Amino acid sequence: MKKLAKTKKIVVYDHKSPLLLESGKELSRVELAYETYGKLNQTCSNAVLIFHALSGDAHAAFYHSDKDRKPGWWDFMIGPGKPFDSNKYFIICANILGGCKGSTGPSSVNPKTGKPYGTSFPPITITDMIKPSRKLIQHLGIEKLLCIAGGSMGGMQALQWAVSYPNTIKGALFIATSPTHTAQAIAFNSVGRYAIVSDPNWQKGYYYDSPLKPLIGLKTARMIGHITYMGQLSMENKFGRKMFENVNSHIDFSKEFEVESYLQYQGDSFIKRFDPNSYLYITKAIDAFNLYNGSKTLAEALEPVQAKSLVISFTSDWLYPKEESLKIVKALKINSLDTTYCNIESPFGHDSFLIDLPKFKEAVTGFLKALET
Amino acid sequence: MKKLAKTKKIVVYDHKSPLLLESGKELSRVELAYETYGKLNQTCSNAVLIFHALSGDAHAAFYHSDKDRKPGWWDFMIGPGKPFDSNKYFIICANILGGCKGSTGPSSVNPKTGKPYGTSFPPITITDMIKPSRKLIQHLGIEKLLCIAGGSMGGMQALQWAVSYPNTIKGALFIATSPTHTAQAIAFNSVGRYAIVSDPNWQKGYYYDSPLKPLIGLKTARMIGHITYMGQLSMENKFGRKMFENVNSHIDFSKEFEVESYLQYQGDSFIKRFDPNSYLYITKAIDAFNLYNGSKTLAEALEPVQAKSLVISFTSDWLYPKEESLKIVKALKINSLDTTYCNIESPFGHDSFLIDLPKFKEAVTGFLKALET
Repeated sequence: MKKLAKTKKIVVYDHKSPLLLESGKELSRVELAYETYGKLNQTCSNAVLIFHALSGDAHAAFYHSDKDRKPGWWDFMIGPGKPFDSNKYFIICANILGGCKGSTGPSSVNPKTGKPYGTSFPPITITDMIKPSRKLIQHLGIEKLLCIAGGSMGGMQALQWAVSYPNTIKGALFIATSPTHTAQAIAFNSVGRYAIVSDPNWQKGYYYDSPLKPLIGLKTARMIGHITYMGQLSMENKFGRKMFENVNSHIDFSKEFEVESYLQYQGDSFIKRFDPNSYLYITKAIDAFNLYNGSKTLAEALEPVQAKSLVISFTSDWLYPKEESLKIVKALKINSLDTTYCNIESPFGHDSFLIDLPKFKEAVTGFLKALET
Repeated sequence: MKKLAKTKKIVVYDHKSPLLLESGKELSRVELAYETYGKLNQTCSNAVLIFHALSGDAHAAFYHSDKDRKPGWWDFMIGPGKPFDSNKYFIICANILGGCKGSTGPSSVNPKTGKPYGTSFPPITITDMIKPSRKLIQHLGIEKLLCIAGGSMGGMQALQWAVSYPNTIKGALFIATSPTHTAQAIAFNSVGRYAIVSDPNWQKGYYYDSPLKPLIGLKTARMIGHITYMGQLSMENKFGRKMFENVNSHIDFSKEFEVESYLQYQGDSFIKRFDPNSYLYITKAIDAFNLYNGSKTLAEALEPVQAKSLVISFTSDWLYPKEESLKIVKALKINSLDTTYCNIESPFGHDSFLIDLPKFKEAVTGFLKALET
């Protein structure tokens, strides 16, 4: 029998108490889509908050119906007997502010105009993203989380949470993440954004009522991203120079090698489920994230942090290289915090945190067990 | 006084003796644009043939006029007292078959129709590219070249030449190149091609008579390429998180960080001088290049090679990593050839071969001197 979960919705900010953003602008209505797995215990001490990455959503585990072919995006990590054990923990995951999977974002209707925001949606930051999540936790009656956890952009949210709300967490799990995006990572995101905004169907972001959407731009952006999420060696081992079709008889400019048709497939599948404007706003938030936030050193910036932490990087992740994780570890150690670091051997690049790796699961399981005591 | 050079043209194949391509198709007219620097000596023993990379052309050195702000693309390597010393050597560089800087390519007029080929231009390969260059050398009266040299795709041409025409060269210089493209390198090229062919202005390649050209697609492709040519650290040192404009007051989806405006600038400058179809055909030739060509080992594939060689890689080149150069070195050593290998320290990534680095120039100078004896 498949484990089932349901996406719930909650309005966390409204016109009476709007969300004040870092930009100084306000959102008069913020709704979050979220899921939970397991049960909150009587002492409310077993809650774990998961933050998703760029292309993720609230559906982190289980199935929505018996007919679903695929479970949530982190199903190998969340469930009975898994690292985030739903028999022991109450696990929460919400779609981020700015997203397009149920939470308020550029595709949502602006209550003031009755039309989708489009690019009238205000710029958002990682700090802005965690505010609605904090409200959700309060709504669920949780004062202190056992742990927060996230990979990639999810790790940025976890880092910011550990700084912004230090009293609300016992432990924090920062996976394949970085205190800031490198120039190279910004550059790749930037080309993806260029592909979207230069797609004639983007229409300055007001395409929601149009039959034409900037899906070619979004597909290009996703294909670029996908290459950067993979390990060089795993890509070589998986595809190498395997041919999809014969070369010489004709010329096909996009699908001659298997790696090309794989990227096309990934791009086509992504544009069915993602909003181009959300892609723009979220990648901007990632690129703008700066954990230093004016501090001279990362240790100084992380001074508020109290949580025990586990920092995980993956050997083949060249987009968020281990040096970035080590900056976090070093800063936490300087601040005399209980911090563990694992650089996990994996050929799968940045996407390793989305792959069922025994060493990865062991590390997380052990860390959570230690937090319970 | 600026050293001046002129681009010359020569028809190397015509309807009486057409060029038979690897695909089995024919080109009934092939013209090459080329430049030369220095003088051919009486024994015709001082000629050096340079192969350019994807975005290069015949204008490798000197200036076209006193008013030119920039010299040819390898001017720091070619000229009096430089590694390819024009006081000693006769240096030749031709625009490749399939290019758009004077040699026959998709933007050339098909003599059979009187119109530009567009995508009716036949697929070309690296082996096809070197055939017209061979004809040019014969036309210039050179039986044996002192040396051939090329970086990146230019290195692929040099490798193929060393196999196809072993008796015609004394030395060969393979720089930042590879016996085949890795799956990752194919993937990046593939997304660039997708951006071009999905640009509505591409019009299946028949845009030459149209006011609308697929320049947004080409710009996207170039921006992707440019990131992969740069070193991660040099990018970080050059740009880091420097801001181009203020973030919070508004949202600009393409030029907030300096690295973004740099990429935009590079893209804008490229589309003024390059043909989108040439980009498609040339990247296809690069991706399809396979020096193994059916052999079980690279040593077996390189058996015809007789030349002394210098193989150069750069420490920060992640697109053509040193492992690829080492495959070539190993195979040449197995075949008991006189081979030298240099892995040159440089933070500038794949583009290092286009940057004036003393160690790089020393290595080339020394190699050429040794060839003269």
